[in-house]
Amino acid sequence: MYKLLHELPVDLGDRSYPILIGEGVLGELDLSGYVDGSQVMIVTNNRVSPLYLEQAKACFPGKTVDTVVLPDGEKHKDWQTLNLIFDALLEKQHTRKTTLVALGGGVVGDMTGFAAASYQRGVPFIQIPTTLLSQVDSSVGGKTGINHPLGKNMIGAFHQPEVVLIDTDTLKTLPPREVSAGLAEVIKYGLIRDADFLDWLELLIDPLVGGDSVALAEAIYRSCGCKADVVAQDEREAGLRATLNLGHTFGHAIETFAGYGNWLHGEAVGTGMIMAADLSAREGAISRADFERIVQIINRANLPSLPPASMTPEDFMNLMAVDKKNIDGRLRLVLLRAVGDAVVTSDAAPENLAATLETFCNQQR
Amino acid sequence: MYKLLHELPVDLGDRSYPILIGEGVLGELDLSGYVDGSQVMIVTNNRVSPLYLEQAKACFPGKTVDTVVLPDGEKHKDWQTLNLIFDALLEKQHTRKTTLVALGGGVVGDMTGFAAASYQRGVPFIQIPTTLLSQVDSSVGGKTGINHPLGKNMIGAFHQPEVVLIDTDTLKTLPPREVSAGLAEVIKYGLIRDADFLDWLELLIDPLVGGDSVALAEAIYRSCGCKADVVAQDEREAGLRATLNLGHTFGHAIETFAGYGNWLHGEAVGTGMIMAADLSAREGAISRADFERIVQIINRANLPSLPPASMTPEDFMNLMAVDKKNIDGRLRLVLLRAVGDAVVTSDAAPENLAATLETFCNQQR
Repeated sequence: MYKLLHELPVDLGDRSYPILIGEGVLGELDLSGYVDGSQVMIVTNNRVSPLYLEQAKACFPGKTVDTVVLPDGEKHKDWQTLNLIFDALLEKQHTRKTTLVALGGGVVGDMTGFAAASYQRGVPFIQIPTTLLSQVDSSVGGKTGINHPLGKNMIGAFHQPEVVLIDTDTLKTLPPREVSAGLAEVIKYGLIRDADFLDWLELLIDPLVGGDSVALAEAIYRSCGCKADVVAQDEREAGLRATLNLGHTFGHAIETFAGYGNWLHGEAVGTGMIMAADLSAREGAISRADFERIVQIINRANLPSLPPASMTPEDFMNLMAVDKKNIDGRLRLVLLRAVGDAVVTSDAAPENLAATLETFCNQQR
Repeated sequence: MYKLLHELPVDLGDRSYPILIGEGVLGELDLSGYVDGSQVMIVTNNRVSPLYLEQAKACFPGKTVDTVVLPDGEKHKDWQTLNLIFDALLEKQHTRKTTLVALGGGVVGDMTGFAAASYQRGVPFIQIPTTLLSQVDSSVGGKTGINHPLGKNMIGAFHQPEVVLIDTDTLKTLPPREVSAGLAEVIKYGLIRDADFLDWLELLIDPLVGGDSVALAEAIYRSCGCKADVVAQDEREAGLRATLNLGHTFGHAIETFAGYGNWLHGEAVGTGMIMAADLSAREGAISRADFERIVQIINRANLPSLPPASMTPEDFMNLMAVDKKNIDGRLRLVLLRAVGDAVVTSDAAPENLAATLETFCNQQR
């Protein structure tokens, strides 16, 4: 028995698509109506494959379903691994009418999406995210790509899926560390645009960390609603969408410094959001009480609140300089104007930024 | 002194752009108005760089111009070489507001365009094609990409340039073999949609082969006009645009069989068009006199009329099966309905296709 709990539209004109959220839907829901041709290529990884590949195949009755299994992990989000998808598509003679399906977390989704954007100059794809992080963030909105040794997500495309299928049952097999990493992005939505949602999260953070499925389904629904709303207003990140990067400029620097995959993306974002909140407080936009409130919920989500011990302010400055949120050499950051309201700005006082970096790199240990 | 001869619009709504055709315009015309930010990255190859790089730089006064020089040749149209562009962009800290400039032939244009489509999920680019083939074909219309060992142009994107600058003076340094290769695509426009243009080409084929600059400028203008017209009607190749692939399915098979770069693309297309014309005659769509007329002009352009001696009908069938013009396993070919009129069809009788392959592989030597 499966239960479809929510159907959320992402409104992007002729590229609109639904997000389907349910319990036990994987393997039960027929997705073949979202497939135009006869060929399907499911892309997954060696961790997810034994758990959910057979169920995913069952979503496409009447189609020719091929599969490719990638090695698991952010460190494989590179060209060599991406090319395994192209190899499989060409060996199985998939045409321009094929549909790719991403079954897994953010790495699988980003790579499969970019493979779909690039294979024969673009074929459709479907997202079936199986981690909390990918369910609330990366599977929605069409950002796809791979890493370059000099920067994360530097090579990619905007390419929207045909449908996103979220089965909350997949979270039952997710390690607690990854639940926490996903909650970082959930908390982010509260911080940048929904103070009521943040209140709700503060009430329910313990059951969420504990994997309570009712609470998680609601958190996913509200998070996807926030994301869909932002993406519909600003698909290509001309302005508003950049607020979704709260904590990400600091976070990407941490991820790059630590080596891809040593910190989970959500963990780095958690620390990055605390750093962004500290800078927002120094800028006078939020109070120290607000800052402490943010530190507290991120701590309660079991996320780290300090960058790697060996990381210096200079490391941050060097790594943030190549971050893609810079335009013409000015360092742009997402800061809070209030709890529940964020802004993208190049106006932060350099001495405040320096003070934040000093504080987090040197003085809190 | 330079002379701007033509300005042709490519009408694609908010992605419209002009094609500028002139003599001696490179280094004289100021293109900085087509550059939004302050950074420019010129991508060229080691053959074109000593000839035209300094002139190209002079087209961007007031901008920070960096350069990257790729190895020359179709065999380098791969990920490793593409990555040299990403390396340069990241090492020089180019932001999302950078503009890429392709200075060279079709390989440089396709790779630079795909790099622009993918760098930070998409940045603008400018085409400065320096070969006849790229001036009349690949620089216009936004097809970009790289090759995969199992198929040509299998990985890429549709990404339109901001402007195309064609300086006919660059043809003075082009080897005769490459002039002929470019003429294959010029002749193609006559065959598929402009019988008057084919008449004109028959009159002027000798001066064109000889590099006459007045004749070439007119041929480029009329070719770009055909291409712009087709692309404006069908940017993503849902139908009409596929007629631009006359001779390309056979041609791609030849290129793949021979190994990328051993046959020039235009040479393979020349032979491919003769084979497509032969099949069109067998299908009863054109007369044998029309076929002979087509063979004659392709021969007069110094293009080959037979595939590699060791290539068999089976080689063709295997290689054509992965060609991207197939949809759901049916072999789609561009055939002539008349001289000056082409159609994309899956309806060619298999025995006629077999007869064409037999004739060209075995019996004409």
